[in-house]
Amino acid sequence: MLDIRMEKTTQPKAKPADESKLGFGSIFTDHMFVMDYEEGKGWHDARIVPYGPVVLDPAAIVFHYAQECFEGLKAYRRADGGVQLFRPEKNGQRLQATHDRLCIPEIPVEDFVQAVAALVKVEEDWVPHLPDTSLYLRPFTIATEAVLGVKASRTYQFYIIASPSGAYYAEGINPVKIYVEDQYVRASPGGTGAIKCGGNYAASLLAGEKAHELGYSQVLWLDGVERKYVEEVGSMNIFFKINGELYTAATVGTVLPGITRMSCIELLKDWGYTVHEGKLAIDDVMKAAKDGTLEEVFGTGTAAVISPVGELVYEDQKATVNEFQIGPVTQKLYDTLTGIQWGTMEDPYGWIYRVD
Amino acid sequence: MLDIRMEKTTQPKAKPADESKLGFGSIFTDHMFVMDYEEGKGWHDARIVPYGPVVLDPAAIVFHYAQECFEGLKAYRRADGGVQLFRPEKNGQRLQATHDRLCIPEIPVEDFVQAVAALVKVEEDWVPHLPDTSLYLRPFTIATEAVLGVKASRTYQFYIIASPSGAYYAEGINPVKIYVEDQYVRASPGGTGAIKCGGNYAASLLAGEKAHELGYSQVLWLDGVERKYVEEVGSMNIFFKINGELYTAATVGTVLPGITRMSCIELLKDWGYTVHEGKLAIDDVMKAAKDGTLEEVFGTGTAAVISPVGELVYEDQKATVNEFQIGPVTQKLYDTLTGIQWGTMEDPYGWIYRVD
Repeated sequence: MLDIRMEKTTQPKAKPADESKLGFGSIFTDHMFVMDYEEGKGWHDARIVPYGPVVLDPAAIVFHYAQECFEGLKAYRRADGGVQLFRPEKNGQRLQATHDRLCIPEIPVEDFVQAVAALVKVEEDWVPHLPDTSLYLRPFTIATEAVLGVKASRTYQFYIIASPSGAYYAEGINPVKIYVEDQYVRASPGGTGAIKCGGNYAASLLAGEKAHELGYSQVLWLDGVERKYVEEVGSMNIFFKINGELYTAATVGTVLPGITRMSCIELLKDWGYTVHEGKLAIDDVMKAAKDGTLEEVFGTGTAAVISPVGELVYEDQKATVNEFQIGPVTQKLYDTLTGIQWGTMEDPYGWIYRVD
Repeated sequence: MLDIRMEKTTQPKAKPADESKLGFGSIFTDHMFVMDYEEGKGWHDARIVPYGPVVLDPAAIVFHYAQECFEGLKAYRRADGGVQLFRPEKNGQRLQATHDRLCIPEIPVEDFVQAVAALVKVEEDWVPHLPDTSLYLRPFTIATEAVLGVKASRTYQFYIIASPSGAYYAEGINPVKIYVEDQYVRASPGGTGAIKCGGNYAASLLAGEKAHELGYSQVLWLDGVERKYVEEVGSMNIFFKINGELYTAATVGTVLPGITRMSCIELLKDWGYTVHEGKLAIDDVMKAAKDGTLEEVFGTGTAAVISPVGELVYEDQKATVNEFQIGPVTQKLYDTLTGIQWGTMEDPYGWIYRVD
C-alpha cells in the first residue's frame, strides 16, 4: 500500500472546450503520479504533483540505452457520471513482466493499481463525457542513473500521465487497409517482442512510414525467423476468422500479450467459438481469402478497442475482407467490450474497477 | 558549416585529481554541445553551453518509444601535448545511417565532425595525460515532441557530452571469459542490429547480467534466426583467427559496423592476412578449438580497443584460447591502433584528425 503524497496545482489548466476535438495523446491533465527507485531504498516517495517537466542528467541511461517501458489504459465515464477502469491489474502484471526483462525492479501490482486509481480520482473532472471519449493513462518507467557504462541503472522513476482523448472512430468505424511487411521485422524469439519497451516502437517507425506512403494505415508484422507467420498489426494484436473459427498468434516471446486480445479470447470462448492461439501462415490467410473462407480480420488494442481490417496486401497479392465491411463477430466484440468499458452493458466478468 | 554559439560556464568544476582513478563514463566536463531540430526549420541553434540537465515534457517520445541513438569516440592526448581524434567522420557516417533507420533527420557528416572538434577544443584541458586515458565523447540524439501517438517525432535534440576516462586495462590486458548466449537474441535481420539505437542495449541487459552471475565478463551473441552463427560479443565486434586466417561476422543488418572493426580489417589486410567477413558457425569455432586450429579470439570496440578472449563456453563445451594468453596478432593490432590513436606511432592511413 503506497503512501501517496499530494501536491495540488495552484494553476489549473482550462479543460478542453470541445470534446469532439480531443484527438489522441496531446493534451495532458493538471497532475501526474511520480515515484522514485534507488538501490538499497526500493521504490519510494510516491506522489501526485503538478504536471511538469522531467529533469535528467544528459548521461541518464534512458537517453542512451533505452532502459524504459510503458503501459496504456483508459478511464471511462459512465452514463451515471461515475468513472471506471478496465482490468488495470492486467496492466500491472504486464508491467512487471516488462520490468523483469529489462532488469528494472518490479512494482507490486496492487501499488500500480492504487497509483492509477489515485491519479484518476484526482483528475476525475478531466475524464471526458462525449460517447467513446476517455482519459488515456500512460504509466511509464525510465532509467535515470547518469553513467555511460552499458548496465542496468541503479535509479529509476515511474510516472503516470493522463490525457483526455477523443473517440477513436470519430466518423464511425471504417475497415482499414493493411500492408504485410516482409522487409522489416518487429521481433524475434529471444528478443523483446513480448514486452512494452520503447525499443520495439523505435524499430517499427520506418515500416510504418513506408506503409503510410504506400497508402496503408498499418503494417502486419510477420515472424522474424521464417517471415511466414502473422504476428501483430501496427501496435495491435490481430485476429482472423476463417471458416467459422478464430486464429491469433500465441504470445510466446515475440507477440505482446494484449489485454484487449485476452478479453476478446475470453469473450469468444464464452460465445462458443473455437479460438486457435498459434502459428498462422500468411500464405494460408491469402489462400483463405481466395477460396472465400476468410470471413473477418480485426486488430485489438487499448486505443481502438477493435479495428476491422478491410484489405490485406502481401507482395503482389491483394485480399479484400468481407467486402470491406465490418463483420458480425468484429462488431459484436466491439459492442460488448465498449459496452462493458463505458458501463452501458453489464459486466459479468468482473473486469470493471470503479474509481468513483 | 555550423555557426556555433558559445556560452562559457561561470562555475568551472575541479578537474579529477587522480587520473589513475577516472573509471569510465561517470565524470563529465564543464560544457556540452547542443543543437535543436524542428520540422520546417531543420537543425539549428548549434551551441556549446555549460553541462546541465535535459528538461523534457514527460510525454516526450524518447521516454516512450525510444526514438534515440548515440555514437562513441575518444579524444587522445599526444605525447607532445596535442589532442587528436580517430576517424571521426566514420562516426558521423554511422550516425547518419542510424538516423535514417529511426526516421530521424540526418546531420551532415561535416557538421558532426565540426561539433565534436569544437567541443574538444573548448574542453582541451579535460583530456587526461596518463597513458591510455582519453576524453570519451558521447554524441546522442533524442526525440523531444510531446505526443503519445506512435510516430516519428517532429522535434529532436542532438547532444555531445564528454567524459575523461581511465585506461581500460588499468592492470594490463587480461584475456576475458565469454559466455555464448543461446537463449536471448541481440538482433535479427530486418531489425535494428546494425545501428546504434538505445533499444539494442536495453534488450541486451538481461543476458549480460546472466553472464556476470555465471562468472563471465561478456556475452557472445549468435544470429537471431538459426542461433548458429557468431555475431558480436557484448557491445563489441569479434574476430577469430583460425589456421592463420581471420574471420568476423559481416555487417549486413544485424551486426554493428564498428569503426575499430573496420580499422582492424584494413590493418590485417595491409599486413597480408586473409580476412573473411561472413558467417562463422559457433560449432566450427568449438571444433577449431578442439583440433588446435583456433589460434586467437578478440573483441574490438572504441572503449577497449582490442579485448582478447581467453575462454569460450557454449552449452556444455568449454574452449580455452591460446592458453589464456594474448596472441601475437591481437597484440599487434592493439599496439598499432593505440600507437596511432595516442600519436606514438606514425599514421600512414590518414586516420588521425588533430584538434589542436
